[in-house]
This record gives sequence, C-alpha cells and structure tokens, in this order.
Amino acid sequence: MNSLGRIFRVNIFGESHGECVGITIDGVPAGLPLTVENFLEDTERRKGGQQKGTTPRVEDDIPLFKSGIFNKKTTGAPLTILFENKNIRSSDYQKQRAVPRPGHADFVAHEKFGGFEDYRGGGHFSGRLTACLVAAGVIAKKLLTVVPLSLQGEGLGVRATILEIGGEAHLQKGLQKAIDAKDSVGGIVECRVKNLPVGLGEPFFDSAESLLAHAVFAIPAVRGIEFGTGFAAAKMFGSEHNDAIENGEGKTKTNHAGGVVGGITNSNELIFRVAIKPTSSTPKAQQTLNWETNEVENFSVKGRHDLCIALRVPVVLEAVTAIVLADLMMLEQHIPRIINS
Amino acid sequence: MNSLGRIFRVNIFGESHGECVGITIDGVPAGLPLTVENFLEDTERRKGGQQKGTTPRVEDDIPLFKSGIFNKKTTGAPLTILFENKNIRSSDYQKQRAVPRPGHADFVAHEKFGGFEDYRGGGHFSGRLTACLVAAGVIAKKLLTVVPLSLQGEGLGVRATILEIGGEAHLQKGLQKAIDAKDSVGGIVECRVKNLPVGLGEPFFDSAESLLAHAVFAIPAVRGIEFGTGFAAAKMFGSEHNDAIENGEGKTKTNHAGGVVGGITNSNELIFRVAIKPTSSTPKAQQTLNWETNEVENFSVKGRHDLCIALRVPVVLEAVTAIVLADLMMLEQHIPRIINS
Amino acid sequence: MNSLGRIFRVNIFGESHGECVGITIDGVPAGLPLTVENFLEDTERRKGGQQKGTTPRVEDDIPLFKSGIFNKKTTGAPLTILFENKNIRSSDYQKQRAVPRPGHADFVAHEKFGGFEDYRGGGHFSGRLTACLVAAGVIAKKLLTVVPLSLQGEGLGVRATILEIGGEAHLQKGLQKAIDAKDSVGGIVECRVKNLPVGLGEPFFDSAESLLAHAVFAIPAVRGIEFGTGFAAAKMFGSEHNDAIENGEGKTKTNHAGGVVGGITNSNELIFRVAIKPTSSTPKAQQTLNWETNEVENFSVKGRHDLCIALRVPVVLEAVTAIVLADLMMLEQHIPRIINS
Amino acid sequence: MNSLGRIFRVNIFGESHGECVGITIDGVPAGLPLTVENFLEDTERRKGGQQKGTTPRVEDDIPLFKSGIFNKKTTGAPLTILFENKNIRSSDYQKQRAVPRPGHADFVAHEKFGGFEDYRGGGHFSGRLTACLVAAGVIAKKLLTVVPLSLQGEGLGVRATILEIGGEAHLQKGLQKAIDAKDSVGGIVECRVKNLPVGLGEPFFDSAESLLAHAVFAIPAVRGIEFGTGFAAAKMFGSEHNDAIENGEGKTKTNHAGGVVGGITNSNELIFRVAIKPTSSTPKAQQTLNWETNEVENFSVKGRHDLCIALRVPVVLEAVTAIVLADLMMLEQHIPRIINS
Repeated sequence: MNSLGRIFRVNIFGESHGECVGITIDGVPAGLPLTVENFLEDTERRKGGQQKGTTPRVEDDIPLFKSGIFNKKTTGAPLTILFENKNIRSSDYQKQRAVPRPGHADFVAHEKFGGFEDYRGGGHFSGRLTACLVAAGVIAKKLLTVVPLSLQGEGLGVRATILEIGGEAHLQKGLQKAIDAKDSVGGIVECRVKNLPVGLGEPFFDSAESLLAHAVFAIPAVRGIEFGTGFAAAKMFGSEHNDAIENGEGKTKTNHAGGVVGGITNSNELIFRVAIKPTSSTPKAQQTLNWETNEVENFSVKGRHDLCIALRVPVVLEAVTAIVLADLMMLEQHIPRIINS
Repeated sequence: MNSLGRIFRVNIFGESHGECVGITIDGVPAGLPLTVENFLEDTERRKGGQQKGTTPRVEDDIPLFKSGIFNKKTTGAPLTILFENKNIRSSDYQKQRAVPRPGHADFVAHEKFGGFEDYRGGGHFSGRLTACLVAAGVIAKKLLTVVPLSLQGEGLGVRATILEIGGEAHLQKGLQKAIDAKDSVGGIVECRVKNLPVGLGEPFFDSAESLLAHAVFAIPAVRGIEFGTGFAAAKMFGSEHNDAIENGEGKTKTNHAGGVVGGITNSNELIFRVAIKPTSSTPKAQQTLNWETNEVENFSVKGRHDLCIALRVPVVLEAVTAIVLADLMMLEQHIPRIINS
Repeated sequence: MNSLGRIFRVNIFGESHGECVGITIDGVPAGLPLTVENFLEDTERRKGGQQKGTTPRVEDDIPLFKSGIFNKKTTGAPLTILFENKNIRSSDYQKQRAVPRPGHADFVAHEKFGGFEDYRGGGHFSGRLTACLVAAGVIAKKLLTVVPLSLQGEGLGVRATILEIGGEAHLQKGLQKAIDAKDSVGGIVECRVKNLPVGLGEPFFDSAESLLAHAVFAIPAVRGIEFGTGFAAAKMFGSEHNDAIENGEGKTKTNHAGGVVGGITNSNELIFRVAIKPTSSTPKAQQTLNWETNEVENFSVKGRHDLCIALRVPVVLEAVTAIVLADLMMLEQHIPRIINS
Repeated sequence: MNSLGRIFRVNIFGESHGECVGITIDGVPAGLPLTVENFLEDTERRKGGQQKGTTPRVEDDIPLFKSGIFNKKTTGAPLTILFENKNIRSSDYQKQRAVPRPGHADFVAHEKFGGFEDYRGGGHFSGRLTACLVAAGVIAKKLLTVVPLSLQGEGLGVRATILEIGGEAHLQKGLQKAIDAKDSVGGIVECRVKNLPVGLGEPFFDSAESLLAHAVFAIPAVRGIEFGTGFAAAKMFGSEHNDAIENGEGKTKTNHAGGVVGGITNSNELIFRVAIKPTSSTPKAQQTLNWETNEVENFSVKGRHDLCIALRVPVVLEAVTAIVLADLMMLEQHIPRIINS
C-alpha cells in the first residue's frame, strides 16, 4: 500500500513528529555513484524557511544512507535512506487532539485507523514525507542520465516550474495577496520533460498518464492533473487538437497531446500541469467539530505552516515524475542493471 | 501491464479487429448473481450508433461468460468475459498502413512494438476494449450494493454525466457545432458517488485519487482529471477552500475537497471531472507523415467514428470508478468473500 | 490471485467442465513467431489417453489464439489462448455432489466458496488447467531461445524427466504395480536446465528457488521440491556439500547446490526434483463423509482418471520452469522487448 | 524484488556489516499492542552464541521502532524496525575479497552486481537479515491471535522444531559429529500449525504451498520443502495416501496431505519440513578460485560462523510461516483492519 513502481520500486515510511521519515528503494541498478552532496540541491529546494510563504520549520535534511550503498556507489541491494526529525514541537498538536483541522487528514485518519494513528503534525499524513520522495527522485534523475544519448537526444531533463500563485502568473503578487489577506493560497505547477524516447508506457492500465497521475496524486495538496492541452482540449475541434506528425522520429507540428498518445510517449516534450490547493493550515479562524464536546467550534492554526505549499511542490513533482520514468526506462531496458561509468 | 487492482483485479485483452476482446476478473466474491441481462443497460449505454455523434459501427456486445460463473452466480474462480467482434471492416485500415493517423496510437504502437502490432482499427489500442471495462464495471457496481447499508447510507450509486460538449453546457448545441463544422469535438464528464464510507484509500501512493486517476487515464481520450474544486482550487484562499466539518460522520458544510482528504474518502460525495479530447478521427482532411514515402501528406479518415467520443465516456467512467471502489471496499473488508443473498 | 510473474506474467482461468480453459500472457515481447504447430509437441506430451496409466479423457487441445498474435507473430499486446472443453461427461460428478472425494479439493472448495463453486470435474481445481500452463510454457521456451548465445552457452534447454514411479526407478514396473493393485501411484520428476547465465534471481524473497517453488506448487499433486542434493544435504558435512569453484565462469567441481547459490543462478546446471502424490482418484473404494446425510460412506471413483498423474507432470514442470526463467531473463534484460529474427 | 505479501507486506534491507538491517511492514492493522519485550523471546531464539554449534557473533538485537507505532500500539501506517550492527569485524572479509567462499553468494553477487556489491560478511546476502524476518514474524504471530476463536479452534500456534542434525534424530549426537569432524553439518526442521481455518490459499498460483514455499526459500540454506507425507508420497498408492474426511469440519482420519488440499488449507494441522544444508563456512580447508590470480587455491574460513545453521532456523521458519498466514488471514478477512482489544 505504500509502494510504487514495478522494477524501480519505492516504499516510504515515517511520521512528521516521529524519530524519522524514510524510504527504501528497490531495483536500483548497481554501480550508480551516490553521495550526500547529490541530494543537497533538491532537498534544499524542498525545504521551507528560505522564502516568503514557506514554513519556518527547517530541518537539516541530510540523507542518512542505511543500506544499498558501498564505496559511494549503489550495490544493487535495497537502498534505504532516513531523514531524522529534529525540529519538532508536538505540543502544538497535542492540545488540539479532539479538533480535526479542516482540510487536513485528521478526521479521516482517526476514522480509518480507529484513533490509533499518530496524530502529531499529521503523523504519517505529512508533507514531511515528501523529503523521501525527493530523495528517491534524486536517484531516479541520476538514472535517467544513464539512458543512452541516442535515445534521449540532447539531454533528458525533468523540470517543474510554478505557473501561477493564487491565480496570478506574477508569483510574488499572488503570494503577497495571501500575506495581505493573512490567508493561504494555491497554485499551478507545470512539469516538462524533454527528449524522452518513444515508447514509454503501456496501452490502458499502465498508460504513461495513468502511472504519472498515480504518482502525482501521492503528493499532498494536488487536486488535479492535465496533460498537454488538458481541460482546454474539451472545448476544441479534432482538427485543431490533433498534432500533425512531421518526421520519422515522431516530432509533431503542435504538441497538444503533451507528449503522450495512446498512453505511450511519442518523442515530443512531456508536459503536464497540476493544481495545488491552498495550504489547509491558515492563520484565519475556521470552523470545525470538537469530537469531545461534539460541538462546532472556532479553530485557529498555530503550528508552523506554509502560506503557499505550491512553492515547495516543483521539486517533489520532478521527483515523482523521475521515479515513474526511471521505472518505465528500466522496463524498456533503456537503463542497464549494472552501471559501469 | 494490463492489470488493475489488488484484490478485485482485472486483466484485459483483445484487438479491435481481432476475433474478440475480453477481460478476466480475479477476486470476485463467490455467490454474486450474474446474468447477461445485468450487462445490457451499461453495454447499451457504451455502444455507438444510437445517438447523433456516435459511430455507426454497432456490435451486439452480448457478454460471453467463459469461466467463473455457475448456476448464474459467481463461483469465486477467475471470471472471464468475451465480446465477439463481428462488425469488422479491416480493409479500411489496411490501405493506410503507412500513414499514421494524427492523434491515434498508430505511430507510437509501431515504434514500441517494432511494426509487429495489429494495426487494424488501432488493434489493442482501441476504444473497443472499453466494452470489457464496462463489463467489469457492471460486476463492480453489483458488488458495491453488497456493502452494508450502515456503511453506505441510503444507497451507494456511481453516476457519471456529461457537463459540456465543445465548451457548451447545452449538449446538443455543442454537438451540432461539430456536425456543422464537419469536425469532431471534446467534452467534460463528471462522476459522482454518494454515500461512500469514510476510510477508502491510503496515505500517499494508494491515495483514492491516485487509484482513481490511474484507472481513469486508462480510458482512451482522457486528458485531465480534477477532484472537487480541482483546478479552481489553485486560485482560492485556504479559508475559502477548506470544508468545515459539521458532524461526527464527517459531513462538511461545503465539499470543495470532492470527498477525499489526505487521500482518504471522508464520507462526503466523491466528485471528479475528466476532460475528454475531441475524437482524433475527424472527417476534416489533416496532415501526417507517410512512412514509406517519408513525405507529409493529406489524410482523410474513412472508417466509422464518433464525432464526440465524450458521449460514450460516462458509462466507462462509472465502470473504472466502480472497479477501483470495489477493490478498496474489499481491502477494507466491506464486501465479504462469499455473498449469501 | 491467479497470476504469476512480474514482466512475463500469466493469468489462468476456466473450469474442467465449463466451456473452455484459458490463459492470458502479458509482457510477451513483440515479434516472436508463433503458430499452432509450435504447441503440438508439448500439448501432446501433456494429454492423457496415449499411454498406460493416463486418463482416457482426450481433448484435441488445439490452442485458440484470441489476442496478441498477428501475421503469425506476437504483437506485444496481451496474448490470450483458449482450449475448448469438448469431451465432457459432467453427470459423473453431479451424482456425487454431496460426497467430497478424498484427496480432492471438493471439500475445501465448498467451504472456501460457500457452495457456489463449479464442482463438476473439480471445476477450476482441475488438472485440465495445466493445458494453459503448458501453452504459456511453449511461449516461454521459445523466448529462452532468444537469449544471446554468449549468455546461454551451447543451448539453454529445459528438460524434465520421471525418475521414479511408485518408488521404482524402472517406470513400467512401478506403473504395473499400480495396475495390478487397481490403485493409483505417485512418482518423482526431475527438471534440469543447462547453460543458464549467472545472476538470475534475487536475494531473499525473489530467490530463484522461491520463484520456482512458487510456480511448481501451482501444479496439482506436487507435495515437495528439492534443489540439488536437496533433503540429502541435511545429512552432509559442509566440506562434502560445498561446491568448489573451478573457473571464472563459476563452474564448480560438484553441483550439490543444483545451480543456485544465495538465491541466484551460478552458471551450473539447474537441478530440482518434485514429489508427485498418487492420483487422488483411484478405483479402490474409499471412505468419505456425505454432507447431506452427515455419515461416512464408501466411495468409488467413476469418472476417467490417471492411475499415475506423475506421467503427465514433466511437460507441465518444464512449462512453469520456463515461465519463471523467461520472467527472470526479461528482468535481467537478456530478452529484448522486440524480437527481430 | 525484496518484498513479500499482498496485504500484510514486508520489505527487508540492510547488510551484514553495514550500519543496520531493517524491515518495513505494510498493511499492519491499527491498534495492535507492540513493545520491545514482545520481540525478545524470538530474537533470543534466533541469536547465536548461546548454544554449542552456533556463531560467537552476538548482537543485542533490540528492535528499534522507527515508524508505525505510537503509544505502544500500531498506527496502521508502515512500520519500520531497524537492528543495529554493532559487533562487526569486517577486516576478516576484506582480506579475502578475491576469493569467493564455496557455498556462499560471493561469486554470484559479484557477477550479478558487477563487483559493486557490499561483500563484507556476505553484505545483503547474509543470515543477519533473518533478524528482520523474525521481527515481522513476531508481529504476524500476534496478528494470528486476533483471528476469532470460532475460526482457529483452541489456539492457533506456529511451532517449528528440529527433527534431525546430520542425519541423526538425537540432535546433540548429530552436532557432536560435526564438532568432532571439525566440520559443519545440516539438518531438517519441521513446522506445524494447529487450528487453522479451512480456506486459506487459492487454486494454482497462490496455493498455500506456493506462498509458503516462496517464503521458506527466502531463508538462507534451505534446500527443500515437503508438505505432509512429502517425498514419501511419491512411493505410495492413492488408497494409502488419501485422507478420509471424518466430519463436517473437514477433519481427516490421517493427515498425509499435511493440512493442504488443492492449494487450500483443510482444517487439519499444517505440516511441512525443510531441508537445511550444512553451513557453508566450515573450519575445514577447501578449494576455490582466486579471481586475481585465476588459480585454484586452498581456502580456510576465519570469521565467526555456525557449525549448524539449522539450529537457528526454527524461529525464522515460524516467522515466514506466520507472515504468509497473516497475509492470507487478512485476505480472508479473518483479521480486521482495526484491532480494538
């Protein structure tokens, strides 16, 4: 239930206010060079605290390699990485045990797990676990560089960027809107992958869109995904939407399909966008139900939270995208089982 | 690669112009009454030929039970259903072997399978296989009726409807637009499920949205999916978007979340929308590349096709939704392994 | 629940006295030539009726290709094969509905599936389904021939032979013993695979032995499996049992390990043996419980049965072995996704 | 590749001389009480150092709970347990890098993972990881106690015992034989489970024997498995081997089947035996190939090793058996998703 992938396969675990969060990655080819330094750029990108609008909780987020790495290279055995939770203030949450925060998993977790869930900071239902996704993404991205250049063209790069914050394409303005309103705000993030080979994905259940969407909805706060022209395609004529094939490599004149046709990558740029809801925790007072009193009461989030979680999504979106693509690349035998560099 | 689900698990096979298409369903509880009649309503809904805008290819679509049913009830063994392909005119396609149709899987299938693919009518990449999804959906829907009333409230119904055709909420107008333009057109379909119990889905990789989106993107022509407020949530403040919990069952004042929080159903109506691209086959002439001559040429679809594939999507969308929900219900032990009615 | 394998993945279905039995194989590379003729040798080997000691029920066992094959080659899409059941005499079984046959699955199937199971001829619990395994085995064996000669040495052959019948190495004598006793009898079958490359299998859960044993116990009547020296190893000293490595390819002086060390193939011949119990149906009168009367009664098998099911096991054992090995070969990228011959 | 189970699902990781070994268990119901004390009996049983014939390497083996436990109960989230490796003397192994030990995975690991494997103490191919299996077994055993008494009779106990050491039923004598010979020796271990309900397991690929054998061959040094009468059944007549059903619960007069018929448990005691090879490391000098010199040389194991690994197998065998049974019990809904005790 907590795993993803067929060959390159990840399993996550941990809680927001437990000792650590972690991930085990199975199916990593042997011989991939891997050091702590490789993780720093992406873990930095994920961390809050650096920019306006992100949470003041800052963790070191140094990946602790527990298995699967030897002499700074992967061994082919399962690779486990932990991130310690150091900067914890659980008392913020314990006070409000009986008051499920609106928009959070508090209520559903309580019902699903019978009250046995670790509720501190959302427990297992915490954005903290995206640190693990990002770590696996770093490895997946490195694996994608191993794909032969003949297949990936000039360089296969996974890149996600924020398109809008609070409906505004000018991101700082969108963010300021939330700060002014003392509220949180959502956003839209786009992911693009250039130079993918033709043929990733399967007809129907393992379509590239199915696998990507599956992984993307594992990211907290994602409310929608669209490929290529996406929802706008629903308003188009077929003659407008169809992409004319122009050469034998499959390049098309337009790219309304966003790089996937029939569930299979078609050599054009993979493009998809995701909708990120506003952070559920907001400084504004809100209503919710108190389990103990069974009365609706006003609720005001203390804790430390992002005003705009979308700011931290790009690197996580890149990570799950890279995880899915690495798995598909291995299935297509574009990444070998042993990497001799 | 062609399977979906963990306990209630489906496998599809077959080609558009082969002998048949089919599905094997594993994990069906024993004792579920099942007759050909149970399938007729939904298979009728999926079939073209009855309404303006759908393809004149009409198949009987009588489900042929090959295994797993005995004395009109399921046996607990794998259940296989075939649909024969009778009304085939492959010559339409064979003429155009070297000309991949824009928007279709012809090109990617050719590259992925090295030219060995059955290209007639799209082969395995055909909307024809949705007959199998619909059949599995019929069984899944029947299983959902077995969920105890204490869990599903007044009746758990999966219902998809078309919201727009060609950008128009007035469906006939949207359709007429396409007919007038001698073109195809897309649409938006919404799916709603009332009275779901709290607790379906898992944190992260098996979130309800992950599993539903995975299944939904297996439907040909889907380009996007959004839950609840979806993409509009990206423009909202947190205080607007959060749904205030009003009672101990988890009912919320608003339902911007669309019934899923933290990846888990929260007892409110499950709501999601999908974007359907315009049918790739359109009467309008289009450009594509001829593999043999390596020249771009004009292309005009003969064959028989839908002007608006979105018209046929609702029943398929219901089917994959029911399949996912039935699997989750079995995982949560809301559907027993033996049904004694 | 009815599937096996990770990339080369099989799903079986059907009942002994239903319309057909069948198998869907996923993950078959495109381009593999495949005709009915390829199946005849192995399906013949599996069929009863030809030799002393096997059942007089004879089916044509012509594989009916329903999907995944086009122009006599595999397409890369799921491949479904059916075998029709023609030669059925269900009345033999219906008479004895309330009397579970000793050694058969009648009782457990009735309990597990609440009486809804198709009980005719054992229903889904029937040796008849091994026809499907054999068919998948034919395809798997063909795939193994695609492995590069540099990896498989002089030719990778999967070959199973009967070592004993009824405790006798002289097979005809062992069989005659059963005929004389008007009883059924068991046997031991050995499977050997030469020229396997090093490196198939994984440490722990997906050890080569784990995967092979898993598949082998899917064959009805198997009661044990041992690799290399097997149970005899339990009586040996380490210095006797260890196989000294003699060259850089990993060839060992002895082969007590049977070709697998640490769960991984080591380039030496893969050798394992399976114990086959005597056919449960025997002409001898036996005791069992009548469900209706709740009294123990004498029971005499009518129907048509094998005196020694072990006679029919070798080709099935080869099949499941080849299925497992083909899957492992694909995982190690020794078999490509497209076969251009 | 390093996971086992469908609902109750385990993933192991770690290396013999790395920082730790560990296991993540998914699908554990919420609410199961769990403390370090629950693990001590079984981890003690697994540890060497206490009895003649087992290795002097002794680890504390205190389970470190990293996730999935809160307030001494399981939360329903993935549960990760680590065991630190403290007592390491890697230099023993580094000296002999070029000399693969006979009977060990050194050679195959080197070939499979291209020399990138962690070779110290066998790396990931180490009996050390059975500590993780035992830990999961403790949880699985606790889960089995939750099965309603109506289903499990007087108490469902998984119990493995040693039947023979070095061919001798008198265990101390068998062990002394090895000590006298300055050699290692194998053994036979039997596992029995009383009071299992009818109906665990599936026809064919997920037969109870398939799943158990799969798990059992994940235990290092296992060379064979047999159920009930096992290999001896191959010498029997059907009328001898068949177990006459005596009552409506399915109890049989004899139990040659070992509690499984048609792949399904039949309410009689589950009985199977496994053959354990002699420890590969033995004080006796042996021949092997030196990779660097490419010459056969004499080899003498230093390190610290068991004379008879079979002595440590029972608790591990119980563990994997309990893991498989817990998974099957959850599939049959005999263990709920939330445990309220």
